[in-house]
Amino acid sequence: MKAITVVGIDPGLERVGYGVLVRDAPNPGAPNPGAAAAPSAPAYGCIETARGLPAAERIREVYDAVSAVLDEHRPDCVAVEQVFFTRNITSALAVSEVRGVILLAAGQRGIPVAEYTPNQIKQAVTGSGRAGKRQVQEMMRRLLRLDEIPRPDDAADGLAVALCHMNMQRFP
Amino acid sequence: MKAITVVGIDPGLERVGYGVLVRDAPNPGAPNPGAAAAPSAPAYGCIETARGLPAAERIREVYDAVSAVLDEHRPDCVAVEQVFFTRNITSALAVSEVRGVILLAAGQRGIPVAEYTPNQIKQAVTGSGRAGKRQVQEMMRRLLRLDEIPRPDDAADGLAVALCHMNMQRFP
Repeated sequence: MKAITVVGIDPGLERVGYGVLVRDAPNPGAPNPGAAAAPSAPAYGCIETARGLPAAERIREVYDAVSAVLDEHRPDCVAVEQVFFTRNITSALAVSEVRGVILLAAGQRGIPVAEYTPNQIKQAVTGSGRAGKRQVQEMMRRLLRLDEIPRPDDAADGLAVALCHMNMQRFP
Repeated sequence: MKAITVVGIDPGLERVGYGVLVRDAPNPGAPNPGAAAAPSAPAYGCIETARGLPAAERIREVYDAVSAVLDEHRPDCVAVEQVFFTRNITSALAVSEVRGVILLAAGQRGIPVAEYTPNQIKQAVTGSGRAGKRQVQEMMRRLLRLDEIPRPDDAADGLAVALCHMNMQRFP
């Protein structure tokens, strides 16, 4: 059983949070060799695009940045947050355009994509689908044993998507 | 004043209609040199993706096909239909993902993008924003002096988006 790498992505119109999680293969010599190792987060961050740019230009920047992350970390899976569309339909459509180029970047590299709703992600990370943003950030800090919550804010959301995927999967 | 080439695209989940329109530069020796020449349609068609494929794979096929059309015809502008979202929100979000990779393909080539609502397109082509699909097809047949309506069906929609853009613009 080898290490698993997951890139989690929280797409947005102006900010796209991402996080890379790696769960090492269990150590057969450890006291409890069946236990999954805690994941580490070798990289996380936020892709920001300027408000004034045309949509096609912003989308291209996201595509280039996501492509670079995938090329650097070569994940086994890309986990992407689904669009939550009941709040603002215009913004949901715009975020879906951004999602489109993220799916493209994964598809071009033959990397499978998993998708989770915002509630699934919060549930997986905090135990409650109604958790607030701050609570998700704090849980990511604890689970990854960081001194501070991940910065910038949206990075924690990307990490949470990746963690959700790791928790949902049963790795063989 | 040079000829103008516009690629019009009607994005959809399973079918993406497209049409290439070229309007030649006015001929200074013609009886009415100020009149715009009627456009010709050197290419039109429909990009179809298989229903069973994962979204990332379908999106990649659309991206590759649209990229090929843009590389072949090198348009001055890409005109794209906006998503009409009051009918089915889930499908509107999926179509927006397809729109995202179309905007990317244009942006990567530095081609400006213009966007029009379905009503603007029908209005520009038929004179009525409430025209039916058949009426748009028939008008495209007449305007382009074709013997039959453009086939497949979605190709007429792509051509209509391109024609809408030509009519909306005043080329210098």
